[in-house]
Amino acid sequence: MDADAQEQEIAELTRLVREFSVERDWEQFHDPKSLVLALVGEVGELAELFQWIPADRAATEFGPEGRQRRAAEEMADVLVYLVRLADVLGVDLGAAARAKLADSRRRFPADELRGVAPHKA
Amino acid sequence: MDADAQEQEIAELTRLVREFSVERDWEQFHDPKSLVLALVGEVGELAELFQWIPADRAATEFGPEGRQRRAAEEMADVLVYLVRLADVLGVDLGAAARAKLADSRRRFPADELRGVAPHKA
Amino acid sequence: MDADAQEQEIAELTRLVREFSVERDWEQFHDPKSLVLALVGEVGELAELFQWIPADRAATEFGPEGRQRRAAEEMADVLVYLVRLADVLGVDLGAAARAKLADSRRRFPADELRGVAPHKA
Amino acid sequence: MDADAQEQEIAELTRLVREFSVERDWEQFHDPKSLVLALVGEVGELAELFQWIPADRAATEFGPEGRQRRAAEEMADVLVYLVRLADVLGVDLGAAARAKLADSRRRFPADELRGVAPHKA
Repeated sequence: MDADAQEQEIAELTRLVREFSVERDWEQFHDPKSLVLALVGEVGELAELFQWIPADRAATEFGPEGRQRRAAEEMADVLVYLVRLADVLGVDLGAAARAKLADSRRRFPADELRGVAPHKA
Repeated sequence: MDADAQEQEIAELTRLVREFSVERDWEQFHDPKSLVLALVGEVGELAELFQWIPADRAATEFGPEGRQRRAAEEMADVLVYLVRLADVLGVDLGAAARAKLADSRRRFPADELRGVAPHKA
Repeated sequence: MDADAQEQEIAELTRLVREFSVERDWEQFHDPKSLVLALVGEVGELAELFQWIPADRAATEFGPEGRQRRAAEEMADVLVYLVRLADVLGVDLGAAARAKLADSRRRFPADELRGVAPHKA
Repeated sequence: MDADAQEQEIAELTRLVREFSVERDWEQFHDPKSLVLALVGEVGELAELFQWIPADRAATEFGPEGRQRRAAEEMADVLVYLVRLADVLGVDLGAAARAKLADSRRRFPADELRGVAPHKA
């Protein structure tokens, strides 16, 4: 995605979260370890939503006809802290994700791994 | 944020991750609970990077002059699975994050909470 | 379980982990936030083991005839850090677990909740 | 720890959690992936307790003179789900932890690693 006059979506979100933090003088709490713990807290809430739902019903239970909004809220919280952590470390999160995906394309050739979930040894 | 001629950044990333999954026939593994577990795995790798670094040195250790690239990779992995989960559930992740942030502005008035980290009881 | 001459199992484990830490002069790294991050790292490794295994095959895949030993290792790592964190905070982990279970018996009456997974709103 | 007439502490806890589950007919929900997600939820609650506390005050904040009891509750929840997962997989959690610790003693010689936190590359 090339540079243009318009602010990129993740950069905009980063700016909004930073403004939110500055207005509350909460930057003092946002060291990386604290932010990772906050991220873990939100991932925990996301996990709790899904924990007892049978695997084959989870997509429906939290899809457009279900509690999608609840899942969206928890996912939003995860993204907000991830974006905040990236800002604190000076990481361009969108660029990092695109680079990682390009790298995964090389490491996991579609021809060799079709239908095979690479599992941890 | 309304539709415009240009694809939004998170939508583009979502499309790239979906293509990656389809090409490998990995959609079959991407039920929500499995994706949350994968997200947890990546958050765990992020946590491991920071675990033994003293809190006041973490931003430098993983900043532009340090191992920023390593942190960026793990954060990218978290974002990729988050985006994939949002796609599977039909969630507009960018919109959800902006809505959540607007909600947080209401719930945490800057005037009342300046410098105070709201803690869990 | 009342006090007796023999050291309780969790107390023994706590002592072993403490000795391990002292011998390596690693107590300096074991502040609570760092230990929680380390715990998160191990939980992440546990999650990675299970992530792409179909839900209805996971118990077999990591059971006595399967990769039980791998799961046991990751679960052991989680326990070790949990025990270490408890030691640092002066928490009697076994007693806390028994108290929590007694509390859960009161909060979740078997008669009312039989077969119903209490879900997060 | 040698075999004796008395039930070991972790075995006792395992039995209590199993009874609790059976009485509520909740075994049906306790497949490994669901239990790992539940564990993640509890680890998230533990992380939330610590997230905004300055690193050098966390041990005091959640020590005997502080909110130790709150930390103990969350740690108890983590242990309960860990013990339940071990039971479902047939893992002897105490033995696994002792074996892992013995293994760590070999992998991390005290002489070579004194005062050095082995970090992830």
